[in-house]
Amino acid sequence: MVLSRARREDAVTTIAFPAPDAAVLGRREAIIAGLARLLPAEAVITSEDERRAFETDALTAYRQVPLAVVLPSTTEEVAAVLRFCHAEGVKVVPRGAGTSLAGGAIPQEDAVVLGIAKMNRVLDIDFVNRTARVQAGITNLAISQAVAHEGFFYAPDPSSQLACTIAGNIAMNSGGAHCLKYGVTTNNLLGVTMVLLDGTVVEIGGAHLDAPGYDMLGLVCGSEGQLGVITEATVRILRQAEGARPALMGFDSVETAGACVAAIIGAGIIPVALEFMDRPAIKVCEAFAHAGYPLDVEALLIIEVEGSEAEIEDALKRIVAIAERFSPKALRVSRSEAESAAIWKGRKSAFGAMGRIADYLCMDGTIPTGQLPHVLKRISEICTGYGLGVANIFHAGDGNLHPLVLYDINKPGELEKAEAAGADILKLCVEVGGCLTGEHGVGIEKRDLMRHQYSEVDLVQQMRIRGVFDPAWLLNPAKVFPLDGRVVQ
Amino acid sequence: MVLSRARREDAVTTIAFPAPDAAVLGRREAIIAGLARLLPAEAVITSEDERRAFETDALTAYRQVPLAVVLPSTTEEVAAVLRFCHAEGVKVVPRGAGTSLAGGAIPQEDAVVLGIAKMNRVLDIDFVNRTARVQAGITNLAISQAVAHEGFFYAPDPSSQLACTIAGNIAMNSGGAHCLKYGVTTNNLLGVTMVLLDGTVVEIGGAHLDAPGYDMLGLVCGSEGQLGVITEATVRILRQAEGARPALMGFDSVETAGACVAAIIGAGIIPVALEFMDRPAIKVCEAFAHAGYPLDVEALLIIEVEGSEAEIEDALKRIVAIAERFSPKALRVSRSEAESAAIWKGRKSAFGAMGRIADYLCMDGTIPTGQLPHVLKRISEICTGYGLGVANIFHAGDGNLHPLVLYDINKPGELEKAEAAGADILKLCVEVGGCLTGEHGVGIEKRDLMRHQYSEVDLVQQMRIRGVFDPAWLLNPAKVFPLDGRVVQ
Repeated sequence: MVLSRARREDAVTTIAFPAPDAAVLGRREAIIAGLARLLPAEAVITSEDERRAFETDALTAYRQVPLAVVLPSTTEEVAAVLRFCHAEGVKVVPRGAGTSLAGGAIPQEDAVVLGIAKMNRVLDIDFVNRTARVQAGITNLAISQAVAHEGFFYAPDPSSQLACTIAGNIAMNSGGAHCLKYGVTTNNLLGVTMVLLDGTVVEIGGAHLDAPGYDMLGLVCGSEGQLGVITEATVRILRQAEGARPALMGFDSVETAGACVAAIIGAGIIPVALEFMDRPAIKVCEAFAHAGYPLDVEALLIIEVEGSEAEIEDALKRIVAIAERFSPKALRVSRSEAESAAIWKGRKSAFGAMGRIADYLCMDGTIPTGQLPHVLKRISEICTGYGLGVANIFHAGDGNLHPLVLYDINKPGELEKAEAAGADILKLCVEVGGCLTGEHGVGIEKRDLMRHQYSEVDLVQQMRIRGVFDPAWLLNPAKVFPLDGRVVQ
Repeated sequence: MVLSRARREDAVTTIAFPAPDAAVLGRREAIIAGLARLLPAEAVITSEDERRAFETDALTAYRQVPLAVVLPSTTEEVAAVLRFCHAEGVKVVPRGAGTSLAGGAIPQEDAVVLGIAKMNRVLDIDFVNRTARVQAGITNLAISQAVAHEGFFYAPDPSSQLACTIAGNIAMNSGGAHCLKYGVTTNNLLGVTMVLLDGTVVEIGGAHLDAPGYDMLGLVCGSEGQLGVITEATVRILRQAEGARPALMGFDSVETAGACVAAIIGAGIIPVALEFMDRPAIKVCEAFAHAGYPLDVEALLIIEVEGSEAEIEDALKRIVAIAERFSPKALRVSRSEAESAAIWKGRKSAFGAMGRIADYLCMDGTIPTGQLPHVLKRISEICTGYGLGVANIFHAGDGNLHPLVLYDINKPGELEKAEAAGADILKLCVEVGGCLTGEHGVGIEKRDLMRHQYSEVDLVQQMRIRGVFDPAWLLNPAKVFPLDGRVVQ
């Protein structure tokens, strides 16, 4: 889970929110009374103190206290809330655990936050067909825990997996360190129960390979809570590998490390994870986690392979042979469970460790793997140009970058500089043939950058699809699309 | 490629086509003259004899001669044709190689067939980033051939891969025997250039991991030519495995073979292919290909694993250990290239071999793997009930069934019985938690079964999405959705 140090109460959000609907604010008491008729008393949160707990998500530099918060316990309750808000013209911001790094769950003043975290039960596990059906408020890790006794797991593993919900994972099409081998959420999702804005409950997909007609499940996955509210999900569960083992490799330049990544992937080897850290990141993580990382290198790769003992030995041998062509300054294959755990502890605590020493914006761009060395050099130049530091920690195998742009929220103007540097980095990703996001989604963070990725025609098509589900733009309305571009059908 | 014996010229199509638009038929000469102004002379086909070559696809029991056929060579020519047809209100049926088994490319009398087979060039290959950009009329196999010299291949492998185009693969989200490990088309597609009905050219996706906003690429993949015409595609290419080796296993009942499949998949082993043939299929394939299949068994499994020699040995050892629990009557691991080639030749010629001895409808349902034994028993009962034979050849590992319902097109009433049996089989797939299609798509074949899979709400949502791209329903209009259900926005 990302813990940012940012706590400046008067932080200026440079990302604009639309002006709240005065008519809705004026009817606040009536709206709350209406919601109270639909749900048990404890499921409707109205006091300012309690609402404040929902004012932001993991993009903590931005915050707005919502009109009200509802925490339904069933699909029927979700449907009742949506039907009511639809009839009343009230905006709804769906929320899982509020761990979005892109501001996907940030409320608006005139919106009801619809949190589904109470709906956290496992409904059915089918080991023969390798599927699990869950309520959508369950945490990502709880799915793996529910199937671990039979040796299974749920593959996508965001850093926030202890806290984040499968509903949020579906909304943002979340990934994780092990997605290089197993794919992201959309590759592991089989079906959902979704409530449309008018309260209609639909089933999309199911516990089978494909579905006839258009790929509605694919469309819903990554739609950031704008097409409906997901209340149940059927996911693929996988057999745990017999074993897994990481290797550590240190290089004296980020370019060499990047070239080594490209060579490994170009050779057709798909490790289960291939993580990259630059010198600032290595230093902070080693100080925090005592992972045994080499401190005299400019770039560190963590490469994990899995399978039977024979498969692991074979894959590591091939990987080491490739790495040696790039003259690594350090090269170590883990030889024990404890050593493997320490190596991963360093990586997994990276964002938290960095948050102790600096505020940061965690960017999430994607690039063709072959562009790694060039892009890392440019990221460094961009941040230096703004007088800011940067640490790079990312999923190198699939070209998914997470530059952490470092700033001090208490220095006036630094947040704005960090935002500008972050935007430049994302534009660079698009320029080299990549894109604005890998696994965090658009949210409010990248909303105004969408025109750098898409033509007006492209954006209009997407917005018209949104209109099919939500003609009045009441669901998570200020996200994903530039505010001035709204198309009404 | 599927070759059906069916040649009865007066075959009654029990699947209705809508009545042709008399106004369009009346303007035929003017429409042809308009198309001739946009394209070189040889790219506009108007004579009845030449148009007849496009009257059907691989679902050969159904045929209609189109108004005209155009064969553009560039994205600009495709755009010009679509712009013209849009302005004139003329229907367009996009066509790759015409190998659809679901009637996805069958024309209509008042429609222009837009064939993209001339656009068959490789545009760019990037081995470091493992991507290839191609024109969409290239054949599936030609992509693999273009990258084979560097040891790469394109993974999805429909039986028709020698003939079928990547555009058709994208339209139907095609699969193949090796998709158990590598996924179907949607899992291997990175981007497309698509022409909208009004002639606008859009770029969707690209050579990167993900794209921000809605998953438009996922939506387009499998949309059966109804959202636009794809003219270029960027696909993932993969490194060929060092080696691959199949094993053959014969069992004395289909139930036991089905249970063995469930046990292998349930143990978390993912072979690169896991194919199933029942006794009628084994007999026909062995007679045709001399593959060395055992003839005294009720069901045969072909299981292929790949990787380094160590990985292959390890995986086969685990698979054989599981199989032995089910007392196989035959169990043989291939020990030579020649033996492997013979085993696959038998399987890959199955549809052609069957077509020499009977007419058949090749169904394409998907079920949860654990339901295999039950479903196979019911398929046999259903076909017996109609007095028809059935042969089962399918991708068992991912629950993708291909029952071949055998009939004689020259016996009046048999085609209708085969259609009824086929429909019963697909409804059975839905009943057990599966779905109407795995990799062939809906086309006209399953159009009228869509209500067995979907509620009216589900279908209306899909049709409204169609309306965003094609409000007048001019693109491949009589496919995918029940004819009486059309929703106008």
